[in-house]
Parts: sequence; C-alpha cells; structure tokens
Amino acid sequence: MPVGTVGTVKAVLPRDLEDMGAQIILGNTYHLWIRPGEETLKTMGGLRKWMSWTGPLLTDSGGFQVFSLSKIRKIREEGVEFRSHLDGSKLFMSPEKSIEIQEAIASTIMMVLDVCPALPAAREQLQDAIDISTRWAERCLKHRDPDAGALFAIVQGGLDRDLRRAHIEALSSMKAADRAGNFHEFDGIALGGFSVGEKPDEMYPVLRDIVPAMPADKPRYLMGVGTPRDLLEGVAAGIDMFDCVLPTRNARNGTLYTSDGAVRIRSQRYQRDSAPLDARCACYTCKNFTKSYLRHLHHCNEITASTLSSIHNLSYFLQLMRDARTAILEGRFAEFRNERLEDWRRGEEMLKL
Amino acid sequence: MPVGTVGTVKAVLPRDLEDMGAQIILGNTYHLWIRPGEETLKTMGGLRKWMSWTGPLLTDSGGFQVFSLSKIRKIREEGVEFRSHLDGSKLFMSPEKSIEIQEAIASTIMMVLDVCPALPAAREQLQDAIDISTRWAERCLKHRDPDAGALFAIVQGGLDRDLRRAHIEALSSMKAADRAGNFHEFDGIALGGFSVGEKPDEMYPVLRDIVPAMPADKPRYLMGVGTPRDLLEGVAAGIDMFDCVLPTRNARNGTLYTSDGAVRIRSQRYQRDSAPLDARCACYTCKNFTKSYLRHLHHCNEITASTLSSIHNLSYFLQLMRDARTAILEGRFAEFRNERLEDWRRGEEMLKL
Repeated sequence: MPVGTVGTVKAVLPRDLEDMGAQIILGNTYHLWIRPGEETLKTMGGLRKWMSWTGPLLTDSGGFQVFSLSKIRKIREEGVEFRSHLDGSKLFMSPEKSIEIQEAIASTIMMVLDVCPALPAAREQLQDAIDISTRWAERCLKHRDPDAGALFAIVQGGLDRDLRRAHIEALSSMKAADRAGNFHEFDGIALGGFSVGEKPDEMYPVLRDIVPAMPADKPRYLMGVGTPRDLLEGVAAGIDMFDCVLPTRNARNGTLYTSDGAVRIRSQRYQRDSAPLDARCACYTCKNFTKSYLRHLHHCNEITASTLSSIHNLSYFLQLMRDARTAILEGRFAEFRNERLEDWRRGEEMLKL
Repeated sequence: MPVGTVGTVKAVLPRDLEDMGAQIILGNTYHLWIRPGEETLKTMGGLRKWMSWTGPLLTDSGGFQVFSLSKIRKIREEGVEFRSHLDGSKLFMSPEKSIEIQEAIASTIMMVLDVCPALPAAREQLQDAIDISTRWAERCLKHRDPDAGALFAIVQGGLDRDLRRAHIEALSSMKAADRAGNFHEFDGIALGGFSVGEKPDEMYPVLRDIVPAMPADKPRYLMGVGTPRDLLEGVAAGIDMFDCVLPTRNARNGTLYTSDGAVRIRSQRYQRDSAPLDARCACYTCKNFTKSYLRHLHHCNEITASTLSSIHNLSYFLQLMRDARTAILEGRFAEFRNERLEDWRRGEEMLKL
C-alpha cells in the first residue's frame, strides 16, 4: 500500500496511483486528526471522496504516531494522552476515539488502537503492551459501527515468539457484541511492532515462526514494512499486505529502485546517461525520461523530480508484488524469491535500502 | 507560454501541459547554461527531447537573468561578464555564445542577447542599451545557423515612445548575411524591458502607441508579461505572444485565478468549501478536487498542492488566451475585454495579481 500520510500520497496524484495499478492506499489517522480534523473529514464525506481516490483506503489507528512522534505521552487504561507534534496542544486518544476518527475518515479498513513499544524491550514491557492492546482491541470491536469499515486487530510481542503466538490466538478468537447485540470478529489480523529498531535478520525468523499461526482465511498484514527484501521475506512467511513510506521517501531523496539495482540518481555518473531509469519498467517516468534528465531535476530541487521519482519507485514496489503474486499462483514463488535476492546481492546496495 | 526555467515547468509534467492545451513553452537559457550546461544539452539531443516535450520551445537569450540575478556584472562591447548566482563563478556571455547555447538547447524560437535596463531609467541609459542591443542583435542574426531555430529580435527603450519606435524600425528592417552569404531577417519582434519596475498603467498606453509600428506579418511578443489584465491589454494593443512565471509562482503560493476572481486558497473560509476551485474550469484539478481539499494540501505544504494549483492556474491563463482568440475571430474582442475587466473589478484583487 502506498502511504498517503495527510490525505495525499506525497508528490503523486490519484490518477498516477490508478495508472500504476495501486489497489489500496493508506492514510494516517493521527495526522488526519490534527489536519484537517474529524469535523472537516466528516463534512466532506470522508477522505476517499475528498482526495478523489476511488479505491479502498486503510487507516492506521494513530497509535504508532502517538508513540513515534510525540515525546511527551502518558498511557492510561482509558487511552493515551499526548501533545501534538505540530503545536504542542494536549490531545487524548482512546480506542473509541480512534474508531470515531477512522469512521469520519470513512476508511475501508480500520485498525485498532494499540501500544507499540520500541525494540529492544523487556519481556515485561512487551507483556504489558499486549495486555492493554488486547483490552483496547476489544473496546474498538465493540465501539465500531458494523456497517462502516472493516476492522483489523494488531498483534504485539516484539521478537518473543511465545508472546506473539499467544496474542495472535487471543485476537483471532476474540468476539465482541456491537451496540445492537450482534457478535463480530476482526476482519483481518496485523503484526505491529516490527521494523521498530530490530535488524531485518532478527525479524525474518520470527515471521516464519509466527505467521502460520495467524488465521489463513483472513488477510495478514505486516505494518510499516518495508524494503523489497522485507516484502519477499514477508510473503514467504505468509504475509498478504504491507505498507511503507520507503518508496516515496527514497524517491524524494533520489534513491531509486530498479531491476538492475539501486540508483542514487544524483550521482555524476548519470549526467549524460540517455537510458531510462529501468528499461524493464513500464511507468510514466521510465517511458518518457532518461536518467540524465531525472538527475538534473534532482540537482535543481525541482518538484517534478519528486513526482517522477515517486511514480517510478511506487511502480517498482507494486510490480514486485504483482510478480510475487503471479509466482505464487504458478507454484514457483521459492525460485522467484531466490532469483530476486540473488539479483539484489549483485546490484548496488539493494539489500540495504 | 508556460515558463519552464530549468527544463521543467515547475510542478507540472509534460502530459499535463498537453492536457491543458499548451502550444509552446519557454526555457531560460541562463539557467540551462549553468545547469545542466551546453555539453549535456547537446549530448542529450536538445531540451525538447530531454524533457519529453513534443511542442515548440522558445528560449530567452539569458540576458534578462544576467541583469536580474547577477549583482556583479560588466557590460563590454564584446558581451557581458558576470558571476553565477549559484556558485559565484565568473561567466562571459556574448551574443554569439547565447546563440550557441540556444542551438545546443535546440530551441524552436531563439531570442537575441540584449541589454535590459530597470525602470525608471534616464533617456541616455535607454539609448545606450538600445545601441548595444542593436549591434548584438545583428551579431546574433549573423551567427545563428539558419537551418536551426527561428530568431526573434528584442526592442528596448523603456517608456519612451520615440526610442521604442526607432528601435522597432531598426530591428524590423535589419538584414544580415549568414555564414553562407545568404541574407536573413528576424522571424519575429519582441518587446523587452517592460514589467521591470513601471506601473501597469504606465505600460498600457505605451503599448497602444508602439505595437502598431511592429510588423503585422510577424509574431509580436511581449516578454515577461504578465497578469490576466496585462494579457488582455497587450492583446488589445496587438500583441500575439506572452510568457510569465505568475501563474505557476502564484500557484505555489496558494494564489489562484478563477472566473469568480482571485482565491487565496489558504484562507479559513475554504476549510469546508465543497465546491471546485472554478466551476467553469475543465482542468484536472477542478474536475476532481474541492477548495477544501486544495486548502488542506497547501496547509500541509504537500507537493501535490503545487502540482494541482499550477495545473489550474496555467489552465486559467491558457483558456483566457483561447477565449481572446475566439473573440477576435468573431469580431467581438472589445466587448470580451470589457466584460472581463468588469468581472475582475468585482472579483477579489484580480486586477492586482
């Protein structure tokens, strides 16, 4: 899922997302709550209509940003108190509030509010985060309007396999009555608390051990991950969905993903390179422009540098996922994954990005 | 002509320029000389190919930027010595050099190198600028490859009608032999040295007096102008071509042109305004987004704010010119102009932008 933090994928218009075959995008509840705010989102008929995006939209709960952006915060049973990263004003987010904001956003898939500890973390801290996250998940499930968006639960537990498995079990079997007395389960299960300080090689074996314990008949979503390698390792473990700002953030910095490896487009070596960024890519950028021109736009800090680079990087990630899907359907995913990892080992820095 | 200073119209992709019906764009020789430089432009087959723009391209001579951006400069008969506004390095631009760079750019319409004094200026200073500009114009006409781009002359003379008319006459009748001994005239005549410090109401009567003296069978181009009002007053005087950064620069600042007047899109009043920016506009922005959403993007300093706003403002200016052309062809330009001026007087600040 391309990430559209405050209601726009940075530098990319909805028609470009459609052109590149994006099937779903992500919005950040915390950012949208601060700007434009719940009332505006509600008045404007929700984010999808407002931003002219016709596909589905997933929103996080706001929890991750509360923990990553806000230096001053206080977790209580009722919710989390914190200060806006923009103006320092005091805010309070409860599980119910998160759901209400996500319903104002008119999200297609909502996420429960959770507590996400940075890694490394002590077992006791991980257990506390799980316990409160479980109670908050249940409150979300009770509070949401069952006729509105789908709702996914979030598993915590750091790199502790037993904690992870126990939390998966607790959330997968959870049922809660809505306001009309009808019982509901979660529509999907997500893994939170990865890519928060640990090494990729610490994450992969944990994923391989715990993902099979997640329900096979519901989407499995690995939050905030990751690099091309992370995606293939995640898929190998059984993950269905990912989101990450990497493709767009790196695009703006001039770090581009190609089938021949990573390209640092500002480099002198591309000054008069008349080849497209990636001859095997069908995106608007690769169809129309050379590396030489892209380098120039980046050197001049032109806005179109960000636009063209973001279109390409997102196209690269989406194509990688389409290729993985095809490989799975054709029963050759293991070979596909090995080939790509081999390519990336030969390419420039591709495994580190 | 939308302005694409360093080889891209800021925030706007070539396909958007095509969509909005742009027939020609402008590039700045001074900027392109500094970055990416003559050799790169030549190697890459010229700017149009490099930037994937299939329409015609006009380039200025670099003279205006030498005078407006460079604080340290020295005009000699041979050319102008100045320092780069980027790194302070010493550069020397002669009429011949300007033509060579514009031919490396593979420009469709090139401009002669001229000396452009800021206004107000003494008559003697205006006369000196005219004299050297005339000699430089002749050197450009001699030096250019007649099989390459067209070449326009530039008339100086400030607000002095007699100086202007004499310079028009000198340049209109100028013929110079190319390297093969064949004589050539200029392919069009431009007015430089307007919109450089004088008031609009000082420029209009001068235009009305001098433009009729310009050859009627060649394009008449008013350089670096201007506001919507400037365009209609220029057309009324007999001008055919304009260029200006106003639509794109104002777009990035959140000042938008609409058929209901100027819109300062950051204003609180648009927070929940669910109307398009301009209901009578057919651009991508107006077809897909509300004022509320555009305001939000500007408040969040999102790149897409610049893109969507630039697409709209350029569309507004191009539509204004198409409407003026239709009105001329239908013999009702005077009414058209009066109606628009009347609209703008009622609208918000439209006459001041």
